[in-house]
This record gives sequence, structure tokens and C-alpha cells, in this order.
Amino acid sequence: MRHGVSLAAVLTVALAVDQMYVQYQIPEDDPRHLPVVLLHGCCLSGKTYETTPDGRMGWSEYFVRKGRAVYTPDQVSRARSGFDATTINMVRLGTLPASALPNIFTFSHEDAWTLFRFGPSFGTAFSDEQFPVNAADEFGKQVIPDLNALLPALNPTYANLAALGRRLKGAVLMGHSESGFFPEEAALIDPRGIKGLVSIEGSCTRSFTNQPPPTPQEIAKLATIPILVIFGDHIADSPSWPPLFSGCQQFVQAVNAAGGDAMMLHLPDAGLFGNSHMLMQDKNNLQVADLILAWIDERVEGKQ
Amino acid sequence: MRHGVSLAAVLTVALAVDQMYVQYQIPEDDPRHLPVVLLHGCCLSGKTYETTPDGRMGWSEYFVRKGRAVYTPDQVSRARSGFDATTINMVRLGTLPASALPNIFTFSHEDAWTLFRFGPSFGTAFSDEQFPVNAADEFGKQVIPDLNALLPALNPTYANLAALGRRLKGAVLMGHSESGFFPEEAALIDPRGIKGLVSIEGSCTRSFTNQPPPTPQEIAKLATIPILVIFGDHIADSPSWPPLFSGCQQFVQAVNAAGGDAMMLHLPDAGLFGNSHMLMQDKNNLQVADLILAWIDERVEGKQ
Repeated sequence: MRHGVSLAAVLTVALAVDQMYVQYQIPEDDPRHLPVVLLHGCCLSGKTYETTPDGRMGWSEYFVRKGRAVYTPDQVSRARSGFDATTINMVRLGTLPASALPNIFTFSHEDAWTLFRFGPSFGTAFSDEQFPVNAADEFGKQVIPDLNALLPALNPTYANLAALGRRLKGAVLMGHSESGFFPEEAALIDPRGIKGLVSIEGSCTRSFTNQPPPTPQEIAKLATIPILVIFGDHIADSPSWPPLFSGCQQFVQAVNAAGGDAMMLHLPDAGLFGNSHMLMQDKNNLQVADLILAWIDERVEGKQ
Repeated sequence: MRHGVSLAAVLTVALAVDQMYVQYQIPEDDPRHLPVVLLHGCCLSGKTYETTPDGRMGWSEYFVRKGRAVYTPDQVSRARSGFDATTINMVRLGTLPASALPNIFTFSHEDAWTLFRFGPSFGTAFSDEQFPVNAADEFGKQVIPDLNALLPALNPTYANLAALGRRLKGAVLMGHSESGFFPEEAALIDPRGIKGLVSIEGSCTRSFTNQPPPTPQEIAKLATIPILVIFGDHIADSPSWPPLFSGCQQFVQAVNAAGGDAMMLHLPDAGLFGNSHMLMQDKNNLQVADLILAWIDERVEGKQ
């Protein structure tokens, strides 16, 4: 697949109900750079990183154009990875009670508008909003049911990401929102193929999975890998975000206190204003990508 | 998206629970040819047309390299298109009985081996088998639960395909297996954007959906569009296939009797032997694609 741009291709890295679909694209020239793995968040799929809702270039194409092999998984139990239908089948057959059915996550257009910080109330955008709010309906079509409640507490996507990193002989893992801390979880399982961790607007305290925050031992392990944590703008304008932001600030401090190289990139501090939760689809999404590319060049590849 | 190869991009063509994810790739040069829409079958996704289970080039890339814009949907209620979770939620909440849950289709590796004509019994290949049976486990990872039982009888994918054809200002639609007759169903809803129909190993009598076979009026409508029906080898070696094959032979005859241009391409008659049900992944998959390309050139584009 290294002859020409591998236009559309797939590998799967796990078996049976743990199976994970990964789409990939490899630049035509032999890559000089580490591959990048782009993982989507709740109620979404790898589509997150393709064209933006208003039809601009997404990160999966942009990173390829910047010489990076790009791997875009669908989380285990989502989209092209499929899911384990056993529980639903057993309830249908009367072997399990209806209460055994999973709590299926999704969100409405209205919920997304404020939660994803498109604006202060549904239909109203922040004055400097970067999300292409005129295409909010198109974004709504990307939302699909999230069946992660069917998964064991140790989400198989973590181990699959670690396996993918090893198969790639080293990669930068990126997660977003629900999966923001998945790169770190993968590194805790097996860091050997993971050269850099990028966590975008996730929970560094594991609040999304109701697990205890990282222990000092875990922090010490993560301190061996460069970490970039990214948050957009208007954190204070939506009640969900300040605790996540401060949790990640403390995580960054803890990693650095343990001798690591962690960096908090709060976009307004870098001069980028108005970014939403879906910053990979924002109008300045390629500028944000450039900051990530610069970080990889300097802190990951520059230190190899 | 016509500047350079549009590496990975998506449009969606419908709203809400009818939403359909469509991945697309457009050749770098302005396309001289009609776009091609490649739709997958039961318990599978658009991954069907990406790299083969043994890692060779799939049809989605090959058709792009042959100058065609390629659109690869995930059927409504499948994969990146998502599904309507209402029924499952209502059963969980006790508003509907467990019996309201959908019958979820899937197939095991063992079932697929004989049903998809990899060989006469699980683990044994036909002597001239074209499917890359050494990668059968990889193929198994592509299998995902099929929730089409959640859909109304008039599957929304039909109308979405018709809408996609119109949006593309003319396209060749291709369906496979479960979706083998979907191109025809789309044309019956709105033929204006549909320039050619390719039905691969499907049911031309609608037996998969328990609908009545096409009426003379419907046959007359379909006779206005060039139709190619394709079957692989070893039809007589698996009991499921002879009725589907003869049903499609009769359909082809009926279309031609109504003044249409329908063609049955039974691959052994064209000198290609050993093809399985997954002929777009077979070892000679690009030879099969060449026959389709030649048909499009002659019977579709040659007549425009």
C-alpha cells in the first residue's frame, strides 16, 4: 500500500467482538514522519476527521498532505467496527431482562449546540465562534448511537490502540472527548508503539468512565511519553467544561512533576479564539492542526 | 474537493433516522466518466470495497484509478450511518415488549464459508477458488450486526441512493447481495440521476425483502436504464444460489422483452472461474472490475 496514495484501505487489529475497523491513508512518498492515529468521541465515528460539516478539508486528509500516514479507527462497538449483539438478542429471546439492555448514548442538535460550545443557547453563536454553525444540521447527521455501555470496563479499544501502535512500529495517538484519555489508557497497557499522546477536550481524571483518576504509578508511566492536551475557547461559558479543563491542568502538572513532558495547549493562550469542542471541524481547523504538527515535530520527533 | 484526489471525505444525503453516510473519492483530473456508487451487502459495511482481506487493492480505489469518482455508502441503519435506537430504548424502559426488538442478522465464519462459496465445507476450498481463503479470518472481522429489521418496508436507503444519483447529476449504482436489487429499487423511486444499474448476486425477485417480484409496470420503468447482473462461479454447489440465479435470469429476459438493455454476466461464461459471492474481494477482483468498466464504457457511457 506504499505505492501511490493508498486511497482507501483498512486494517483490523483485533478479533471477534473486540474487532476494530481502522481506515488508513499513507502518503505517496515513504513517510518521513510518525503515523498519526485519529480517534473520535461519543456518538460519532471516524467521520469526525473527514470533511467538515461545511465541506472543508478535515484532519485526516490534512495530516496526509503534511506527510503523515493517518489511521482513523471506529471505536470498538461503533460504526464499521460493529458491536456485540448478544445482549440484545438475549433480551429478545427472554433470556435476559429488558433492564439488561445498554444505556445508548446520543445527543440532539439542541444539546450539542450548547454542550459543544457553538454558542450560549440553541441557535445563537458566540460572536467569535469558529464552528461552522450554518452547517450544524450537517454535523447532526454525523451523530450515531453510542453502544459503549455494552463494553467491559477495560474498553477493548485501549488494547487495540496499543496493538495498532506496535503494528505501526510507533505512532502518535490522538483522542477526542469521550476518547480524549484513550491514548493514555492505551499507553498504560503497552507503551512500546506509542511515541506521543494528544488528548483533545477529554477527561484526564477518568470521570467519563467512572474509574479512579490516574495513580502516581500510572502518572510515572505516562511521564515517559510526550503528552499534548488541547482545549478550545469558551470553557467558562458552559458548566460542563471547567472541571474537565482543571482536571487536565492538574494532570499536566502531575506528569511534569514526575519528570514528564506534558503541555496544556489552551487555544486562546496561543492566539486562537472561538474554538468549539469540535475543533477539528472548526473554521480554523487547519491552524489548530498546524499547532499539533509543530508539537509533534518538536516534542516527539525532535527528541527521537 | 476537485483539487487533488479528495482523499477521504463524506457527504450525507438524508436527515435524522434516514441518514446515510457516504464516503467518496474523486480523481484528481476532472472526471471524464460517470461516478460509481458501491453499496455493500448484509452484515457488512462500505469496508467491503476497500482493501481485500489479504491486503490487495479493492474496487473503491481501483475505480478511482480508472478515472471514476467513487461513492461508498454505509446502508441506513448500519455502520457510520448509525441507526434508530428508539425501539431498543423503549424496550429497555418497558414501553415496548422484548419481542419488539429487531431480529439482528449476522453470520459466522462457518456459515459464510459455504454460503459465500469459499468451498464445499468449512475449511475446504473449491479447487479453483478465487476468494483469498487464507485471509478468511480477516474477512470475518468485517462482519457487523445488520439492523435492517429496524427499517420500514420501503428501506430509506433506496430513496437516499436515488437522491445521491441526482446530486451527482448521474451515476452508476452498484449493489451486492442483500443490496443487489437496491439500485433497481432506487431507480423505481426516481430514475433521473441513475444512468446504469449493476446488481451483484442479489435477489431480482425481491425474495430478500418478502416483497412481490417486480410488476410489468416496474419492469417497463427499469427497461429505460442499462442493467448489468453479475454472478460468480459454483452456483450449483450451494443450495441457496440456483433460485437467485434463475430469478435474475428471468428478470434480465423480462427487461429485454420490454425493450430494455439488460445483461447477465455469469463470470464462468466470460472465462473467469472460481469466483465467490465476495467477488469484489476475490484474487481476480480487478479482472471482474474490468468487465464492469467495459460494460459501463459500452452500454452506459457509449450510449449517452
